[in-house]
Amino acid sequence: MDKPYVVGIDIGGQTSKIGIVDARGTVLTQSSIRTDKYADVNLYIDELSDAISKLASSIGGMEKIRGIGVGAPNGNYYTGTIENAVNLVWGGSNAIPFAKLMKDKIGIPVALTNDANAAAVGEMTYGAARGMKNFIMITLGTGVGSGIVINGDVVYGHDGFAGELGHTTSVRYNGRLCNCGRVGCLETYASAIGVARTAREWLETTSEPSILRSLAEQITSKDVYEAASNGDYLAIKVFEYTGKKLGEAFADFVAFSAPEAIVLFGGLARSGDLLLKPIEEHMNANLLPLWKNKVKIIFSQLKESDAAILGASALGWEL
Amino acid sequence: MDKPYVVGIDIGGQTSKIGIVDARGTVLTQSSIRTDKYADVNLYIDELSDAISKLASSIGGMEKIRGIGVGAPNGNYYTGTIENAVNLVWGGSNAIPFAKLMKDKIGIPVALTNDANAAAVGEMTYGAARGMKNFIMITLGTGVGSGIVINGDVVYGHDGFAGELGHTTSVRYNGRLCNCGRVGCLETYASAIGVARTAREWLETTSEPSILRSLAEQITSKDVYEAASNGDYLAIKVFEYTGKKLGEAFADFVAFSAPEAIVLFGGLARSGDLLLKPIEEHMNANLLPLWKNKVKIIFSQLKESDAAILGASALGWEL
Repeated sequence: MDKPYVVGIDIGGQTSKIGIVDARGTVLTQSSIRTDKYADVNLYIDELSDAISKLASSIGGMEKIRGIGVGAPNGNYYTGTIENAVNLVWGGSNAIPFAKLMKDKIGIPVALTNDANAAAVGEMTYGAARGMKNFIMITLGTGVGSGIVINGDVVYGHDGFAGELGHTTSVRYNGRLCNCGRVGCLETYASAIGVARTAREWLETTSEPSILRSLAEQITSKDVYEAASNGDYLAIKVFEYTGKKLGEAFADFVAFSAPEAIVLFGGLARSGDLLLKPIEEHMNANLLPLWKNKVKIIFSQLKESDAAILGASALGWEL
Repeated sequence: MDKPYVVGIDIGGQTSKIGIVDARGTVLTQSSIRTDKYADVNLYIDELSDAISKLASSIGGMEKIRGIGVGAPNGNYYTGTIENAVNLVWGGSNAIPFAKLMKDKIGIPVALTNDANAAAVGEMTYGAARGMKNFIMITLGTGVGSGIVINGDVVYGHDGFAGELGHTTSVRYNGRLCNCGRVGCLETYASAIGVARTAREWLETTSEPSILRSLAEQITSKDVYEAASNGDYLAIKVFEYTGKKLGEAFADFVAFSAPEAIVLFGGLARSGDLLLKPIEEHMNANLLPLWKNKVKIIFSQLKESDAAILGASALGWEL
């Protein structure tokens, strides 16, 4: 193969990770730069290009690279633009033509999408969804993201922004206020922040004894996980509640696209059976009979430290 | 064009409609047979084939027919089977290989899907969704059906049964019991039966004056529509409530596939602004900012008497 490698770039608010990846999903070499160092996107792209060139020198030079995939907040696959990404210091403007700027600078095709869609492509290319044509990727991090794959393709929709399942409604009335301005979004219950929020609410409104009481306002989802792992009743119930919310939501997602599996990724997905069991229970309780016990819930098979780079890089093969 | 026509067959519990259609969506000739006359599907297919032959004689014979499309309850596009269709007297068995039986009998390729998916293909081929690559068809009849189109293709999912949006959850707790065994399904609120159910519930639990009071238990959605058209306050409120349920649900559907439009079809869709205004209001109130006021809600453009045949026939062009 003349061009046997792809580059994956994961753009976060503070740090951007860059890696060169082979067809088996091995990250051969990687580095990172600050995302927030420049207010001008062109200066950021200059440094990004330098970082790629440096990495490429160790694998035989830029001519070995077939394509570059970028995962970025509010990345639009159709237009290659990053739109209204308020978490990026250079991203506040309406639509930055990121893929074009990058390709003009570096001379290699560039594809761009948001982080969750990139994760879905990564899972399909190298991970737990290899061989699957229909699945839904759910990323359980600070928020809840999603990448939907139908007939082997990521769903981008009419405008490029399909797959915002974290902002479907979990609680219709008197739901929690979400950062998006809506009320009752799945994300406000089923994200890492949602788990901590549930724990804090229950500590305030019940007298249930719990080792979490000493942490009060500083509680994180990791604290809740550790408490649950140590048998703390309230913490276990928090995970059951979180899994219930996810399972109920998943039943509606299945009614939409009838996936073979739902793949979980992100910090919360590391909770294992604490989360998986209630998800399966409540999803199946809410499914139409034809789908009961037929839809798999599985965990990502990408190494978490590499997953963001791998996901983005997978787009590079399609160029 | 050597084979300029397709056949559309719409299989209902009592009656099956058959029509021959040209590329412009004109039904050139049509007839119908009883669905419930035979307990044996082979006898039903014999009569169906005879009916097609008779129709074909008026357009130059069977050799002018490119393909046959069938819309049937529980029709599976992938396998060409009708599965557990309890409303069809010959349909109760696990999986009837309908497309194969039909093709073996008549020697023309046959494709099969459920009614709502057929409606979506019909709308895309001849109707309001011409030129659209991403839209959702919602059929508002006795129940609520759906056909989802992404990138120009109907979504069938892993098993062929995707697109059961009438059985997504509208009311999570203390919702209405649905025929499917679940609770709170959209269909229990937003179908013709749901509208009548809302009216009956409100007449029982309020003392609001209404011209519907004289009808009591016999109320149909048509009665509610007529009362609302005549300015009956309770009836108007019933439509507002129905539209609210649909609008809330549509917002979640948009978060999934970011469609260009949602197309409404079926008896209730004839209610016009009575239903459309609350749908638009509540959908937009529940959408993420990026989609507010951007997703069109439109009505089917297929003549209702021909729509079922047209929808099924549209599958025939893809063979």
